[in-house]
Amino acid sequence: MKQRIQTDPWKIIEDGFHPEENRFYESVMSLGNGHMGMRGNFEEDYSGDSLSGTYLAGVYYPDKTRVGWWKNGYPEYFAKVLNAVNFLYTPMKLNGVAVDLAKEEFSNFTRVLNMQTGILTRSFVIIRPEGQIKFTIERFVSTNNREIAAIRFHVESLEGSHRLEWAPGLNQNVQNEDSNYEETFWEPMEAEIENSMGFVLATTKKTAFVVGAAMAINASGATPIGETANLQLATLQYEIQLDAGHPVVLDKIITVLTNRDHKTEDIKELAYQSADTAKKTGYDRLRAAHIQTWSAIWQESDIEITGDDAAQQGIRFNLFHLKQTYNGLDPRLNIGPKGFTGEKYGGSTYWDTEAFCIPVFLSTAKPEIARNLLIYRHRHLEKAVENATKLGVKGALYPMVTMNGEECHNEWEITFEEIHRNAAIAYAIYQYVLYTGDRDYLLSHGLDVLIEISRFWANRVNWSEAKQAYVLLGVTGPNEYDNNVNNNWYTNRMAKWTLQYTRETIEKYYYAQPQKIHDILDHHLVTKEELEQWQSVEEKLFEPQDKTLGIFLQQDGYLDKEQRMAADLDPAERPLNQNWSWDRILRSCFIKQADVLQGLFVLGELYSMETKKRNFDFYEPRTVHESSLSPCVHSILAAELGRLDKALEMFHRAARLDLDDYNNDTDDGLHITSMGGTWMNMVYGFGGLRIKENGLYLTPVLPKTWVGYSFVLRYRGSEVKIKRTQNELTIQLLEGKPLHLRVWEKDVYCDIDGVRIPIVS
Amino acid sequence: MKQRIQTDPWKIIEDGFHPEENRFYESVMSLGNGHMGMRGNFEEDYSGDSLSGTYLAGVYYPDKTRVGWWKNGYPEYFAKVLNAVNFLYTPMKLNGVAVDLAKEEFSNFTRVLNMQTGILTRSFVIIRPEGQIKFTIERFVSTNNREIAAIRFHVESLEGSHRLEWAPGLNQNVQNEDSNYEETFWEPMEAEIENSMGFVLATTKKTAFVVGAAMAINASGATPIGETANLQLATLQYEIQLDAGHPVVLDKIITVLTNRDHKTEDIKELAYQSADTAKKTGYDRLRAAHIQTWSAIWQESDIEITGDDAAQQGIRFNLFHLKQTYNGLDPRLNIGPKGFTGEKYGGSTYWDTEAFCIPVFLSTAKPEIARNLLIYRHRHLEKAVENATKLGVKGALYPMVTMNGEECHNEWEITFEEIHRNAAIAYAIYQYVLYTGDRDYLLSHGLDVLIEISRFWANRVNWSEAKQAYVLLGVTGPNEYDNNVNNNWYTNRMAKWTLQYTRETIEKYYYAQPQKIHDILDHHLVTKEELEQWQSVEEKLFEPQDKTLGIFLQQDGYLDKEQRMAADLDPAERPLNQNWSWDRILRSCFIKQADVLQGLFVLGELYSMETKKRNFDFYEPRTVHESSLSPCVHSILAAELGRLDKALEMFHRAARLDLDDYNNDTDDGLHITSMGGTWMNMVYGFGGLRIKENGLYLTPVLPKTWVGYSFVLRYRGSEVKIKRTQNELTIQLLEGKPLHLRVWEKDVYCDIDGVRIPIVS
Repeated sequence: MKQRIQTDPWKIIEDGFHPEENRFYESVMSLGNGHMGMRGNFEEDYSGDSLSGTYLAGVYYPDKTRVGWWKNGYPEYFAKVLNAVNFLYTPMKLNGVAVDLAKEEFSNFTRVLNMQTGILTRSFVIIRPEGQIKFTIERFVSTNNREIAAIRFHVESLEGSHRLEWAPGLNQNVQNEDSNYEETFWEPMEAEIENSMGFVLATTKKTAFVVGAAMAINASGATPIGETANLQLATLQYEIQLDAGHPVVLDKIITVLTNRDHKTEDIKELAYQSADTAKKTGYDRLRAAHIQTWSAIWQESDIEITGDDAAQQGIRFNLFHLKQTYNGLDPRLNIGPKGFTGEKYGGSTYWDTEAFCIPVFLSTAKPEIARNLLIYRHRHLEKAVENATKLGVKGALYPMVTMNGEECHNEWEITFEEIHRNAAIAYAIYQYVLYTGDRDYLLSHGLDVLIEISRFWANRVNWSEAKQAYVLLGVTGPNEYDNNVNNNWYTNRMAKWTLQYTRETIEKYYYAQPQKIHDILDHHLVTKEELEQWQSVEEKLFEPQDKTLGIFLQQDGYLDKEQRMAADLDPAERPLNQNWSWDRILRSCFIKQADVLQGLFVLGELYSMETKKRNFDFYEPRTVHESSLSPCVHSILAAELGRLDKALEMFHRAARLDLDDYNNDTDDGLHITSMGGTWMNMVYGFGGLRIKENGLYLTPVLPKTWVGYSFVLRYRGSEVKIKRTQNELTIQLLEGKPLHLRVWEKDVYCDIDGVRIPIVS
Repeated sequence: MKQRIQTDPWKIIEDGFHPEENRFYESVMSLGNGHMGMRGNFEEDYSGDSLSGTYLAGVYYPDKTRVGWWKNGYPEYFAKVLNAVNFLYTPMKLNGVAVDLAKEEFSNFTRVLNMQTGILTRSFVIIRPEGQIKFTIERFVSTNNREIAAIRFHVESLEGSHRLEWAPGLNQNVQNEDSNYEETFWEPMEAEIENSMGFVLATTKKTAFVVGAAMAINASGATPIGETANLQLATLQYEIQLDAGHPVVLDKIITVLTNRDHKTEDIKELAYQSADTAKKTGYDRLRAAHIQTWSAIWQESDIEITGDDAAQQGIRFNLFHLKQTYNGLDPRLNIGPKGFTGEKYGGSTYWDTEAFCIPVFLSTAKPEIARNLLIYRHRHLEKAVENATKLGVKGALYPMVTMNGEECHNEWEITFEEIHRNAAIAYAIYQYVLYTGDRDYLLSHGLDVLIEISRFWANRVNWSEAKQAYVLLGVTGPNEYDNNVNNNWYTNRMAKWTLQYTRETIEKYYYAQPQKIHDILDHHLVTKEELEQWQSVEEKLFEPQDKTLGIFLQQDGYLDKEQRMAADLDPAERPLNQNWSWDRILRSCFIKQADVLQGLFVLGELYSMETKKRNFDFYEPRTVHESSLSPCVHSILAAELGRLDKALEMFHRAARLDLDDYNNDTDDGLHITSMGGTWMNMVYGFGGLRIKENGLYLTPVLPKTWVGYSFVLRYRGSEVKIKRTQNELTIQLLEGKPLHLRVWEKDVYCDIDGVRIPIVS
């Protein structure tokens, strides 16, 4: 953990340049709009250390799998998030010498991300023997028109006269640092300068995505002095006279279009048109529209925390990046673990989406958004069946990591064995129906997925004569610090839950719509015998536990491990995964991320506080939280158990994971999907929100050190704002029909007048 | 399994060329002499499919590790067996057109390996419009002078006159097919032609091995027409007039020297000298000396089987290749799993050496040979301690795969977890002392290794409160179709055995040489407390078993698996590792290779026939024998249990593994180390040999279909020949002092008159 960032409710500020931490700042200052985004890279050339990255949603490259030892069943490729056309690219020269902060004397450097407006501003004063020149460079990726980005250069001589050469460009010569075989992934197709506008077109190898970028310039007072257009690069060159007291403003407007949204043959014309229109609209109006859209996003999702600026900054940082990454407008897209902030991990879709992001989108955006995430999996059902078939199992196994539905990960202990991901996908359907009341979804899409997942579970188990129970052998649970274990409790329990939910859904709808259910079962070739076998597995699936301790066992044999406490670890050994050999981690009792506790959170309704307490007391001290997905779950359970100090400690860790670089990897990009977990931490944890069959439950608690907090919530067409202080809880209806809630186990009715519940401490 | 090879007691014959099986024949026709060797490649250019390979013992390249996902603790490199200077290289032209069997019309092709003489002969008749020309090309790698190889080309026009261009050369432009990053591993240094001799010198990148090869030519009647010497290639070109009835003989004599044996600056001169001397000696005399040495090798190691030609050919094939690979003259060398027959797997040393090859070298060669294999590990003790330290464990963990003592493998489930290899190294010391009576070895070297291995075991365990026993978690046993299991019985049992043997050795020698033992313990900083802890682990190390079935359990939870029989598998699914995904293999009950049974073989003296029978009956039907190291152990136990049909079936599989391509991988090279297992299969299995504390035991059995067999055996300075037929057993003293043996539980005394025991059936 490194505390680098000063707290501020809305801003992320780098005050003075930190070249050795540049990758960190590039990550946290990333911008995106669901369609495209980029890291906080510099526009002008920078010869120091940097991870350059511009990314386009859904544009990927199937990089040939690289392994040491091939295992049968591995996929042929790993879908890489692609570094795409660098449209920031704008080399500058002052008096003939390149501006390069790695080589330059300069002062007053700041890089500031304003999360309220989604605008990144960088300023610095270059100190040359000839005098000082101040640069302020501001940019945004429009949330209003998602194919548009804009950059404004504000340059001012503080003393003397200078000649600025300014060369806005589009640079297609980009590479991924994580390319397996050091290949480039792009074939350049075209680059041109026409009518003082630039255009480049390129296509990805293998996947044949076509991407066109155009730029238009507003630069009054600048003199065109040249242009370059080769296959990989289009630049315009201008000369600007800088005199003290006469600042100049240079705008670069960019559009980026792909053949995911347009016909390839139209891209060029549309890109030019769009850039030209945007140029005519002008930077200021583009900027205002962008800010307005952000304002609307904050309206429906902001969380305010008073009395804890670090927490306030943290939760907004999480919401900001999550909403930048995914806007739910395109059911072909999903939520990549690094969003637009880095190239690591690749793929776009992990179980993180269902397990950690569904609730925040259900709560803070229209139901269609979460529905699109569900539809995404429905579209991939056939490939999930193929995937299971490859492993010799019937039914559907959704991939661990995917772009297009095909598995693309290649670690046997994960790819083949971390099968609990299937359960999260089933559970997301359950949650969606609970939140929205959209029961039709079950018949139109949900049951297709539930049936094939249930079939998978019922087929993946085997009967153990020794245990006289069905067992799930050779799995990896959420805790990836144990691999290839038998009977991971979380996996078994969630498998059982899925079988139960599928059975109950079939039974429930059978009475109302027997023909429809018949059709669905027939379509999937489900027989009565098969349903009976599923029920047998549901009833007799083994759940490891220790009766003496009164806990569920993470897996068979967990208690054979040497039982140590994470608190007794030498801090120099943390994080374990950077200091211990893998086998040492595996045979230790230390838990990377919530596993049994994940289950007790997800299925919390089914377990008593006593059970949760015993398991929490056992597992929490053994958990090292070296996954970004861990602290939030522990914090939620701690809050439920009334352990607010612990809950707050974990919440800080979740909310400031990247800002304070807890896992020493923010350089690679941000942990986007765990940001959904941070939202859950706040709203499910402190807010005590639970959505149950019979409605919305709240038990809001407040850490001692906080003054108060508020959050907004959608539920079945209503939107409410919940505000908790030390003295009272208020609920305000923002939109929709009045709502019945259960607050602290009491019925509460919230209409347009709102509710105010005093708190007597 | 593919029966391609006709049976013959001494020869491996390819009759008619099989281009689609060329890699197979190249593998089985490999030649070697402990210093160098090569696959059965063609001398002249061949544009068809081929795996070209010439290898030099101990010359390796540390290829940068390639993995998909790095795990902490992985080594930086994998030591690759290097493809070295191709000295077969001899392009030929007939009437101006290259001889290339991929493009040529030809007849009467044979490729024959004579295992009795170690000579490979290939002949064919080229059919050209101008007439037919017969080639017979014979070669050997001298067992007499290990730096020398020789090739004789015998060419004869069968009709008409022809012009042969013959260009013997040394080609340093070689690559490994399995290079991780498609790099070349060599830097060429020099190539020259001088006095009608050729020379090339090259050095390996990183490891800086220097290899020089020289060639000299005897080619009377050939006219020199040119020469080539560039950095990677030195060739001489000759022209030969071929007239019907006037065959010509062309000899190419090669020497290959490395800086492992010579000073770099001397290599060139010595190589020229040696080649020149060999040339003067002449092909015929070099050949005769080579054959004589092979004759001596067969004298001390041949096994004769009458009545089963396939078995006879198989066992000789095993002995031939094993003795080609390792001659024990250099304690820096070990027995690579592919010897000089392929580049796959890399490294030179696996646990195979101790577990499968020590007995054959102890039995059929001077004790120094096996001693050198032990010394090899003693030299690497310090690196084994470093290796264990990396994994956070005290003591020594010998590497899974190594060239120089450093671990170079990179699969976590193997590298870090297949730790039973340590036990085989301890057990080899025990065997060496039993066989040779060289007790001094324990004090000079053995205890150093035993102590550090015992320390490893005592440190790698942990106390399980649940089991009230020490446990070994997270291991992979010999059966690699189960990974990361807990309490693999074989591993635990062998760990316990090691601790016991170390303790007993210390105790035993303490009375005779207390000071020496003190010094050794002090040197290793072993305290009384530590010895007590070792004893506690020895006494309380968990051994999984099932009391109902009366068997040892391969590992915790093995009985939770679905219990199926290998015989019920669809043959189309075999081998499983080429047809099933890895997770499916792991969760199945199918066993790749002897695991519990390996332990019951190694520690057989300690277990009753009843115990062996129960375990054999349980595990044998579940074993798929997809490791080359498996059938021999099953066969030995089957023989002991009187199941001769099973024993014979498994013996055929062991002995003809590569010849009949059971595992569909002979193309890559031969399974050299399992050939030691085949010898054990014959001598321990049918011969019933056991070496115990109190002497040599024999219980020879004879399969019904066999007429008889014989083998030779060294034991404490004596050498005897055992011959079994249906009617009698004879023991003949070949060398050394008379010997007491226990044959069929009776004392037998064998002096110069030998022993003859009639068998009454």
